[in-house]
Amino acid sequence: MKVAIQGVKGSYHHQVADLLYGEVELLECSTFDQLSRAVAQGDVDKGVMAIGNSIAGSILPNYTLISENGLNITAECYLDIDHQLMALKGQSLDDIVEVQSHPMALLQCKPFFRDYPEIKLVETDDTAAAAYRIQRDGKKGIAAIASSIAATIYDLDIIASDIQEIKNNATRFVVVEKEQEDQQEPNKATINFVSSHEAGSLARILTIFGAQRINLTKIQSIPIVDKPFLFSFVADLEFEALDQFTKARQQIQPYIKELTVLGIYKSATL
Amino acid sequence: MKVAIQGVKGSYHHQVADLLYGEVELLECSTFDQLSRAVAQGDVDKGVMAIGNSIAGSILPNYTLISENGLNITAECYLDIDHQLMALKGQSLDDIVEVQSHPMALLQCKPFFRDYPEIKLVETDDTAAAAYRIQRDGKKGIAAIASSIAATIYDLDIIASDIQEIKNNATRFVVVEKEQEDQQEPNKATINFVSSHEAGSLARILTIFGAQRINLTKIQSIPIVDKPFLFSFVADLEFEALDQFTKARQQIQPYIKELTVLGIYKSATL
Repeated sequence: MKVAIQGVKGSYHHQVADLLYGEVELLECSTFDQLSRAVAQGDVDKGVMAIGNSIAGSILPNYTLISENGLNITAECYLDIDHQLMALKGQSLDDIVEVQSHPMALLQCKPFFRDYPEIKLVETDDTAAAAYRIQRDGKKGIAAIASSIAATIYDLDIIASDIQEIKNNATRFVVVEKEQEDQQEPNKATINFVSSHEAGSLARILTIFGAQRINLTKIQSIPIVDKPFLFSFVADLEFEALDQFTKARQQIQPYIKELTVLGIYKSATL
Repeated sequence: MKVAIQGVKGSYHHQVADLLYGEVELLECSTFDQLSRAVAQGDVDKGVMAIGNSIAGSILPNYTLISENGLNITAECYLDIDHQLMALKGQSLDDIVEVQSHPMALLQCKPFFRDYPEIKLVETDDTAAAAYRIQRDGKKGIAAIASSIAATIYDLDIIASDIQEIKNNATRFVVVEKEQEDQQEPNKATINFVSSHEAGSLARILTIFGAQRINLTKIQSIPIVDKPFLFSFVADLEFEALDQFTKARQQIQPYIKELTVLGIYKSATL
């Protein structure tokens, strides 16, 4: 099996792939766009993609990538993101003049560096890539913010642990595939729909979900560019049997303009 | 009048303050947290705060800051964010080895720099602060990504215009104040509520809004940390007369656990 991840070995995406599938062949992608295309073109069997976190909310552009590339969500996984500060063996925090990482990791750890105003924060493409380059180039004085497995893989010392500001930083990842597998007993669906223009259509749609005992676990409106009064919604729905979802999907037809099922899968727990 | 902005003079927040109030005394805040506290403590009359953009969605942590500091949204404003690359007079793109800006601006302009892999992207606290320091220190070889007014204020040359990837990058700002002013003919409200645990309560709430001819222009569910099955919602509601909102607010009582009105104000157009 071949799995596309965002970033290089040692990234949080790698950690999720490892958790779900163990040791597999990895395709390292530098962007979510590249990852989506690799899955759509059949270069890999699956792709692992972050889709949101408990602090900042959804990564909306990734929903667009899934939809535009015709991908299917076939699984989900939650990972607690704990950021580690790592450097060459023997280095300590006092030796560090520059910290490199992905902009999101830098943002999440910014309060930690308030006490170290002389340390320069430099953005890189990827958390694990920053760790990799420190080892490859034997860079003294430079630290990376990355996952604990990146420290192991690239043989670096963790010089400060769990430096992210908010400690409950769970990130939700989804597995995307070209084809929608027939899953055993799925109980969750992710959909993207445009409600019809009539006032109250969203309320009617949610009433139908309620009548089918479908639990709405996420809803987010997305303004449609250039169409100020039209909204697209992303929603996650949980149910006991697929039949509930199938019925609701038929019944909401009068109240929607468009509906894309991004995936039907088994829910995971945090 | 004294207005708190995020960032320094020349920031996009300054641009919004200028648009709304003309020349006023500014309090430059390095974080949204500091800005919120300045408003709550009465150090300023108003604060200008970015609350979301058309690409990435809401800045959820800012809703939390408004709520936790007991602030009121009293106005909104949309600004098209056009990023300019600027450097000391006489410099051209070929001279640049490093570009400094806020991580969000760097992200939005990343595709532009694909053709210049030798340019290092370095994150700073603020777009305009990066521009300011280039002028103050006479830094050759360094460029900043910032607003066009930053180029004017800090006397820099724009060496590449509108370098952001997506051209319709409208950002929504809100004005926050300590007290809820009595506004003339408000037609919009931002609320934060926790629906009661019963299935279908969100559908009932939206049905009530629909019956009062209230238009839902934004809804987003926010997972409540440590309470996996409870959700908080942020919603923007538009109406013609305040009376519609007042009635709906009473009628939804049975279906909500908590409701905070973050503000009642006049809507702005994009």
